[in-house]
Amino acid sequence: MAVAGASKSFNATNPIYGTMRYPGRAGQLLSEAGADVGDEVEVALDRQVHQGTLMPHHDFSGHDIITLKLSSGYNVGLSVEKGASVKLISKKQSKSSVKRVMPPDSEKKDVSFLGTGGTIASYVDYRTGAVHPAKSAEELVFSVPELMDLCDVKAKVLCSIYSENMEVLHWQELAKAAADELNHGASGVIIPHGTDTMGFTSAALSFMLKSLTGPVVCVGSQRSSDRPSSDATMNLLAAARICVESDIGEVVVAMHSSVSDTSCVVHRGTKVRKLHASRRDAFRSVNVEPIAHVEGGEIVYASEYSRRVAGPVEVREKMNSKVSMLHFYPGFEPEHFDMIAGNVEGVVIAGTGLGHVSEKLIESLGKAVKQGVQVMATTQCLFGAVNLNVYSTGRDMLSAGVVPLGDMLPETAYVKLMWALGQSDDPSEVRDIMLTDIAGEITARRSV
Amino acid sequence: MAVAGASKSFNATNPIYGTMRYPGRAGQLLSEAGADVGDEVEVALDRQVHQGTLMPHHDFSGHDIITLKLSSGYNVGLSVEKGASVKLISKKQSKSSVKRVMPPDSEKKDVSFLGTGGTIASYVDYRTGAVHPAKSAEELVFSVPELMDLCDVKAKVLCSIYSENMEVLHWQELAKAAADELNHGASGVIIPHGTDTMGFTSAALSFMLKSLTGPVVCVGSQRSSDRPSSDATMNLLAAARICVESDIGEVVVAMHSSVSDTSCVVHRGTKVRKLHASRRDAFRSVNVEPIAHVEGGEIVYASEYSRRVAGPVEVREKMNSKVSMLHFYPGFEPEHFDMIAGNVEGVVIAGTGLGHVSEKLIESLGKAVKQGVQVMATTQCLFGAVNLNVYSTGRDMLSAGVVPLGDMLPETAYVKLMWALGQSDDPSEVRDIMLTDIAGEITARRSV
Repeated sequence: MAVAGASKSFNATNPIYGTMRYPGRAGQLLSEAGADVGDEVEVALDRQVHQGTLMPHHDFSGHDIITLKLSSGYNVGLSVEKGASVKLISKKQSKSSVKRVMPPDSEKKDVSFLGTGGTIASYVDYRTGAVHPAKSAEELVFSVPELMDLCDVKAKVLCSIYSENMEVLHWQELAKAAADELNHGASGVIIPHGTDTMGFTSAALSFMLKSLTGPVVCVGSQRSSDRPSSDATMNLLAAARICVESDIGEVVVAMHSSVSDTSCVVHRGTKVRKLHASRRDAFRSVNVEPIAHVEGGEIVYASEYSRRVAGPVEVREKMNSKVSMLHFYPGFEPEHFDMIAGNVEGVVIAGTGLGHVSEKLIESLGKAVKQGVQVMATTQCLFGAVNLNVYSTGRDMLSAGVVPLGDMLPETAYVKLMWALGQSDDPSEVRDIMLTDIAGEITARRSV
Repeated sequence: MAVAGASKSFNATNPIYGTMRYPGRAGQLLSEAGADVGDEVEVALDRQVHQGTLMPHHDFSGHDIITLKLSSGYNVGLSVEKGASVKLISKKQSKSSVKRVMPPDSEKKDVSFLGTGGTIASYVDYRTGAVHPAKSAEELVFSVPELMDLCDVKAKVLCSIYSENMEVLHWQELAKAAADELNHGASGVIIPHGTDTMGFTSAALSFMLKSLTGPVVCVGSQRSSDRPSSDATMNLLAAARICVESDIGEVVVAMHSSVSDTSCVVHRGTKVRKLHASRRDAFRSVNVEPIAHVEGGEIVYASEYSRRVAGPVEVREKMNSKVSMLHFYPGFEPEHFDMIAGNVEGVVIAGTGLGHVSEKLIESLGKAVKQGVQVMATTQCLFGAVNLNVYSTGRDMLSAGVVPLGDMLPETAYVKLMWALGQSDDPSEVRDIMLTDIAGEITARRSV
C-alpha cells in the first residue's frame, strides 16, 4: 500500500547507506577491503583480531572508529589509527539487502515512524562512552531490519532531542504529524521517544487526537540500540505489530513487560508512568490493567480499549501552558505556592495520601481559586485515587474550591489541564472537561 | 520491668473507662442496664435489635449514639433517641478486664507509645460518617487489648494531628521523646502516625537518632481502628513484637505486606514510600528488600539491618527548614525555579529518568549553586538511581554543580538536606554528609 504522505518513503527513496558511510582512515580501509555495511569483516588491530558485522558509521564515533556487531550481540568500536587492517569475510546476505532497497511492497501495510530522539534512537560514542541521539529515523530503523518483514516503513525525523526537552510545541507537532500520517493511509504511527517524559507525551497526544483510525504507539528503550542488552528491537517490533495487526484506536506506550526479553506490554497513554530510572520494564500501567501484551508474535488483549474508527483523525492541539504541577510535602511554604499560583492559570497538586495538603496551605489554595486559578488535586502515591471527602483536611480543600481528579495520574492531570485550558475559556467548562473521561484517564472503578 | 520515664504508665495510673463513658441518654440507658464498656449488650431500636460488644464512647459520636462491635467485626453507631432499650447479655470476660487494670507486669518489657494522630488513632463519627483522630493514646491502645499480652504499654500523646500537618518541629519533639523513652528503659518505641507523611517522619527520625538501643517503629493504618477491615490491630501487634522480640536498632515502618491480613512488613525508615492512596499494603520498600516480615507471630528477617547498641541514644535534631523539593516536568519554567531557589538554602530536584531536567533549566541550577544554594538530584521514577554521567543533560547538570544522590528517595533526600544543613554551615561538609550513607538511605548496589 503505497500512498502519498507527509513523509518520504524509507525503502524507495532514501537508501541509508549513503548517509552512513565511513569517512577518513576507517573508510579507506573498508573501501580497500571491499566491505560494505552489513558485511562480515575481520578487523586486525595491534594485538587483537575482531570479527563481526560491519555497522553503519555515526558521526559521533569519530573518523577512525569502525563499529562491529560481534556474534555475542555486543557492538564494539575499534580504533583503526595505527597499523590496523580490514579483511572482508563474506558479503551481507542478499535477502535483507534486497528488502531494504525494494520499492514499497503493496501487500504490506504502511507504518509511519516519527522520530523524536531519545535512547531508542541513540548510539554510544566509543571515544567517550557517552550516548548520543541518532540523527535520522533511518538510522533507527536500520538497526531493526525485521521491521521490514512486518510493514512498509515510512520514516520522518520531527526532532532529535532528549525527551526532558520536550514541550507543548513538540506535542502539537507530533499530534499534527501523526494525524497526517493516519489520514494518508498509514495503518499506525510509531513514535520512537526518549523514555524520560514519554508518559507526558502519550498523555498529550491522547487528548489532542480524536477519531483515531489506528494506533499511535510511543516506544522507547532503556538501552541504546547498539547495546546487546537493548530493548529497542523487541519494543519496536511489538509497536509495529500493534500498528499492523491490532484494531486499537488509541495512543499507547509499548515497552518491555519484565527485565527479560519475553514480552512487551501495551499501556494506555494516559495511565502509564516511568517507575524505574533504568530497568527495561520501567513503564507501568497505573490503576488499570494494560491494554495488551505482545508475546511470541501474538497480541494478547488484557482489557477494554477503543477500536479504530473510519476517521478522519481530528487534531485538537491547542494548549495553555500556564500550568504548574506542585508536589506537596511537610513544610511546604504557602508563600511558595502563592508565588507560583500568581504566575499561572492552573495548578495541579500532587497531594499526600487521598490528595491532602497541610491545613496552613489551604488558605492559599482558596485565594488562588478566587483569583481564577484552576486548582486540582491528585495523589503523589500515584496508585489509588484522591478522595477529599474522608478527612476534614480534604473537605476544607473542597470548600476552598479544589477539584479532585479521581485516580488521574498527576502527570496526566498536568497535561490535561493545559489542554482543557486550551479548549475553553469558561472556568466551569474547564472543570467539566477535567472531570470527564476523555481518553481513559479517569477510571470509575480501579481494577488494581 | 517498671521504670521511671517521661510518660505515664497506661495500665496503672490511667484506667481508660473514665475517659470514655457514655454521656446523655445513651449513658442513662447503659447505666440502667448495668452495662459497661466491653460487655455484650443488646440494643433494641424502633424496628431493629442489635447485639454486640459495647465499645467506648467518643465525643465525636454525639450523646445519643451507642457504638457496638458486631460479631461480624463491623462497628455500628446506634441512635438511641426515641424508644430505644438496652439489655445486658453478659459481662466482659474478667481476664482482659483484670489485665487492663493490673499494675505493670515485671516480666514484660516496656514499650512506649508516642501518639501523633492519624487514621490509626481515628474513629468514625457516626453522625457524619467522617473520621476524627482519637484524643488519647489510651483510646488507641484500648482497641487492641492483645498488646498487653506482649508488653507493658506506656502511652503518651505528643500531638493529635493529621500527618499532612507534621513539620520539622514535630519530628524534633518525636526524636527527643523517643530517645527519652529508650534511655529510660523502653525496649522499643511505637509511633502511631498518619500514613500520609509517615515516610518523611521515619526518614527524619532515622537521621536524628543515633546509637539506638531499640527499634523506633512508625506504624499507621489505612482503615480506622473501629472498622472491621482495619489494619490497625495487626500493624500495632507487629510493631510491638518488633519492639519486644527483635534486636533491630533502626527507625522502621511497620505496615501490611498485602491487602490480606496475613503478614506485616518492616521497612527501613529511609527507604519506604506510600505508593497507594488507600490500600492496606500502600507502603513499599524502594530499591531495597524490607528488613523483616512479621507473620503468624514470627519475625522473619529479610535483609541486613543495624542491631541495638548499648546506648545511650543520642539526638541530633537540628534541621534547617529552608529547603524545597521540586519535581521537574516538561515545560517547567526556569523563572519558577529561580523564585523558589531565591528563598531557600537547598533544593532537591526530582528529575526525570536518571535525574534529568530540561536544558533550559540548567542555567538556573548553576546560578543557584553559585549563590550558595545546595542543588541535589534524585529521580521521580522513585525506583532506580540517578546517574548524571550517561547523557549530556546529566553531565551539564554536574558541570552546573548539581549533586547526584544515588538511589535516595526524593522525600528522604528532602528531609536529609534539611538535616545536613542543620548539622553544618560548611557547604562542602553538607555535600559530604549528603553523599555519606547515614541510615541506609543510599544503597551502593540495589537489590531490586
